[in-house]
Amino acid sequence: MRTLTDISMPICPGMPVYKNKEEKQPVFETTSDFSTASAHETRLHIDAHTGTHIDAPLHMLEGGATIESIVLSQLVRSCRVVDLTGVTDAIRAADVEELGPKAGEFLLFKTRNSSDDFFNPEFVYVSADAAQRLADAGIAGVGIDALGVERAQPGHETHKRLMNAGAIIIEGLRLADVEPGVYTLVAAPLALVGVDAAPARVFLMTE
Amino acid sequence: MRTLTDISMPICPGMPVYKNKEEKQPVFETTSDFSTASAHETRLHIDAHTGTHIDAPLHMLEGGATIESIVLSQLVRSCRVVDLTGVTDAIRAADVEELGPKAGEFLLFKTRNSSDDFFNPEFVYVSADAAQRLADAGIAGVGIDALGVERAQPGHETHKRLMNAGAIIIEGLRLADVEPGVYTLVAAPLALVGVDAAPARVFLMTE
Repeated sequence: MRTLTDISMPICPGMPVYKNKEEKQPVFETTSDFSTASAHETRLHIDAHTGTHIDAPLHMLEGGATIESIVLSQLVRSCRVVDLTGVTDAIRAADVEELGPKAGEFLLFKTRNSSDDFFNPEFVYVSADAAQRLADAGIAGVGIDALGVERAQPGHETHKRLMNAGAIIIEGLRLADVEPGVYTLVAAPLALVGVDAAPARVFLMTE
Repeated sequence: MRTLTDISMPICPGMPVYKNKEEKQPVFETTSDFSTASAHETRLHIDAHTGTHIDAPLHMLEGGATIESIVLSQLVRSCRVVDLTGVTDAIRAADVEELGPKAGEFLLFKTRNSSDDFFNPEFVYVSADAAQRLADAGIAGVGIDALGVERAQPGHETHKRLMNAGAIIIEGLRLADVEPGVYTLVAAPLALVGVDAAPARVFLMTE
């Protein structure tokens, strides 16, 4: 019996956006409705980093690869949801050490962020030293339940160390209802070409 | 050994859009780049019906349900890819009859549309009588390799008969490289709320 657990953020006007910046809010423009036409149609105006999304290297690395460089076989695979709900500020190298990250693993960090339904500027993030430890371990990717994997630290070292190691970064997960453990991750970004990120529908599967 | 076959259209400016309408083209707006900032960011301006997408009942039914009413368990499931590459104009009730549609089945129609990499106004569509036959059979959903399941026929009967029967409609599939047969369908729409459709990443899986 297959179970599916959606770990994506709903996307609509008024949703949490990074740093509560108004210009990052989604806008849904009705371009046709039944008052004047026979079909209802909508144009979406949304940031590539809206809600649950996958960063491409170009987001932080000049000349970096764009989102289509990340292929489905890297995103549909085993993952491990780890409990870091005890962390209050930043995930440090020692926290990573305790997890025992293995080469090729995809880790999803469940933190206290998952209980926030608003943008919390004090969200738990991944420190640069933790990112280095993850990179050294050869992990395949990380996911976090915040709209950023770091809080815009100078130099964006967390992003860069992960990206330079080829690790995929998924941001904006919703893990409140997920028990720590091993799952099949299905991360399905829009098939965008040439850009620095893609919003994604992401869910966990057990067979 | 799992195999994954992406059946989504790449999304980028210049891609095929319905009736080649310029206002339906995606626009990728660079909102930050390395000439003035330390990160690259993009805002997407795209129709909800861009590329591979799932229609919600609201698209054609006044007061119809919006896209979040279609849940993942309806979209991650068995499907059957059927070969209708011999059809030259419209899929008719007799074509459907030959397929022997079963209650609860999700059918993906592979037609000669899959070999077009441009918007062909003469795309193969599903006739209203075929839609009625599918509805009568109690199918769960249909997918087609065209940007529409019909060519804007007066009254949009194909859409309406399927939607009124609760059948899900996926448009814009790319099936050129897919052999007819049974697969696990993974159709992952963006988690949009309150709108008439959602672009989706869609792929076929074998275990």
